[in-house]
Amino acid sequence: MQCLNVDLGDRSYPIYIGARLLEGPGLLAPHISGKRVCIVTDDTVAPLYLPALETALAAYQITRVVLPTGEAFKNWATLQQIFDALLGERHDRKTTLIALGGGVIGDMTGFAAACYQRGVNFIQIPTTLLSQVDSSVGGKTGINHPAGKNMIGAFYQPQAVLIDTSSLQTLPEREISAGLAEIIKYGLIRDAEFLDWLERNMASLRALDSDLVTEAIMRSCAIKAEVVAADEREGGVRAILNLGHTFGHAIETHQGYGSWLHGEAVGAGMVMALDLSARLGWIDVQQFERGRRIIAAAGLPVAPPESMTVDDFRRLMAVDKKVLDGQLRLVLLRSLGEAIVTADFDTEALSACLAGAQS
Amino acid sequence: MQCLNVDLGDRSYPIYIGARLLEGPGLLAPHISGKRVCIVTDDTVAPLYLPALETALAAYQITRVVLPTGEAFKNWATLQQIFDALLGERHDRKTTLIALGGGVIGDMTGFAAACYQRGVNFIQIPTTLLSQVDSSVGGKTGINHPAGKNMIGAFYQPQAVLIDTSSLQTLPEREISAGLAEIIKYGLIRDAEFLDWLERNMASLRALDSDLVTEAIMRSCAIKAEVVAADEREGGVRAILNLGHTFGHAIETHQGYGSWLHGEAVGAGMVMALDLSARLGWIDVQQFERGRRIIAAAGLPVAPPESMTVDDFRRLMAVDKKVLDGQLRLVLLRSLGEAIVTADFDTEALSACLAGAQS
Repeated sequence: MQCLNVDLGDRSYPIYIGARLLEGPGLLAPHISGKRVCIVTDDTVAPLYLPALETALAAYQITRVVLPTGEAFKNWATLQQIFDALLGERHDRKTTLIALGGGVIGDMTGFAAACYQRGVNFIQIPTTLLSQVDSSVGGKTGINHPAGKNMIGAFYQPQAVLIDTSSLQTLPEREISAGLAEIIKYGLIRDAEFLDWLERNMASLRALDSDLVTEAIMRSCAIKAEVVAADEREGGVRAILNLGHTFGHAIETHQGYGSWLHGEAVGAGMVMALDLSARLGWIDVQQFERGRRIIAAAGLPVAPPESMTVDDFRRLMAVDKKVLDGQLRLVLLRSLGEAIVTADFDTEALSACLAGAQS
Repeated sequence: MQCLNVDLGDRSYPIYIGARLLEGPGLLAPHISGKRVCIVTDDTVAPLYLPALETALAAYQITRVVLPTGEAFKNWATLQQIFDALLGERHDRKTTLIALGGGVIGDMTGFAAACYQRGVNFIQIPTTLLSQVDSSVGGKTGINHPAGKNMIGAFYQPQAVLIDTSSLQTLPEREISAGLAEIIKYGLIRDAEFLDWLERNMASLRALDSDLVTEAIMRSCAIKAEVVAADEREGGVRAILNLGHTFGHAIETHQGYGSWLHGEAVGAGMVMALDLSARLGWIDVQQFERGRRIIAAAGLPVAPPESMTVDDFRRLMAVDKKVLDGQLRLVLLRSLGEAIVTADFDTEALSACLAGAQS
């Protein structure tokens, strides 16, 4: 097992990473202050891992909330089911919410914890590779609004994160690739050496070699923790974590949530960001090709859906949360391993990038 | 005009208090960072003060949200109207929400600001005496759930609070008394000298003498700010601000929200807390009588509704947010001017207090 401390002053917390961590109560107990817990999961994860977690937490009074699976249910009506259960069983402020599942479950449970009686404790147990390297660090919680993804939410930190790499064994291959997209992202934005390591080990990572996967998650979370510690509420540098996401969100919205996985859209979006960076002359064509090759090696798409037009991109990118006072900002690369956030780019290069993505 | 700084480190903010403050933009402008604002108010306050505020903010692009009036609408569906307006008009993270109204508007607007895109700026312009001395300090925001008041919310601080005492001129007399209940509370829990001052000036305060009202609001906010600064997230001493509230909430719930005003229920609840403190021998009967006299002089009820039984109280008090691990904690008085929070009281004295309240 490895342990990483996310340093946020009085909101600091540990991330435990390793195989078969779910089976013992030892890691969770120090982070549960009362006698009661509420486990929130979905109907895909519940049959796989809920019994083991309930056994590990046998010493506590447990409330279970099993939600329908998927991004389509990441809304107020589903969130309300958590509040109804907590109030129905009279959980007080000392309760602890435990999120057992992927990013949707983590985001909703974290937001429920942020809002229930104005804030109770919560623990994240992310079960997908994407959520393990993305939602474990950063404290972003929330739900979707019909007009936009993650528009309602809070920055709220967990007491602890438990990453049991064994839970990846039941994950579809496509979702492993989607998680690898975010892992590659950390290399691209901040750590050239990690990118080299990923390039060398991609096949073993896709085969879920336990030690390599633990290492990849550990290094990803460490990079994210470093960026988040510098900018907890996303005033500046933290935005580099969105490499490929502005293009990617446009793809997701255009296709309808759930058609492309988030990580798949980010994969194609990162290739577009690499392409634009090359068109601006910030990276050379060899670096662009290498970046694209690593993304392809992870089993990810390297171009947006053919049905998307330049106009689709322009319209959908205009609602991005990174738009400030009407101006689009993008995360681009100065080199493989160094990202910047800028609104200062040649708009013709962007047009060429959007048009080129369709060719 | 007076100005009080609420000292919460990087979440510190000023409270401006005085007559006719709403008419100039000078106080607001430094606290609005973007070009856009969203004014949230209700259909009672809008015709009275919205035009003046819009004139003062003519330099900004304004979105208006006029909600139905009253506690019955302090719920998710109404909150959603704020999000719909913000997203419908594409407000980004630099927007500023402005709450113009009483406590319900302040709580909902603050919660909307806490959640919209995970947090945007907001300014409070409380127009009732109760909200001026209660919601101005403390950062409590939220909505009701069918199973309980204020069960969903956040601690979230405004950029500034503007208290225009002229807005009290349109307030019904009953609501002035309700505000005085919270003002008396500050004297009872923390400041015997302020309680003396209130006792001497009660008639002039009820007649809305401008200088005296400004002074009373200023001192109330200062006491609350001092308590909140010591305990922003209500771990300990902050709970003394709930003097009379556990009894009061039971009264409100029993009567149905809106039948008794919150301040009226707190008035009767404080008399019950004084009574229990006397039964426990912590204050003498003269102090109890004096406390009750001051509350009566403010035009407040000094006993719960006759229809409420001891069982009603016990059942309704069991869901109070101050219940921890099943144990009821109450705010009681060691003297007029000194409150404590305790679960360590003789339960027979509580029974006698509840029974006595009905006699």
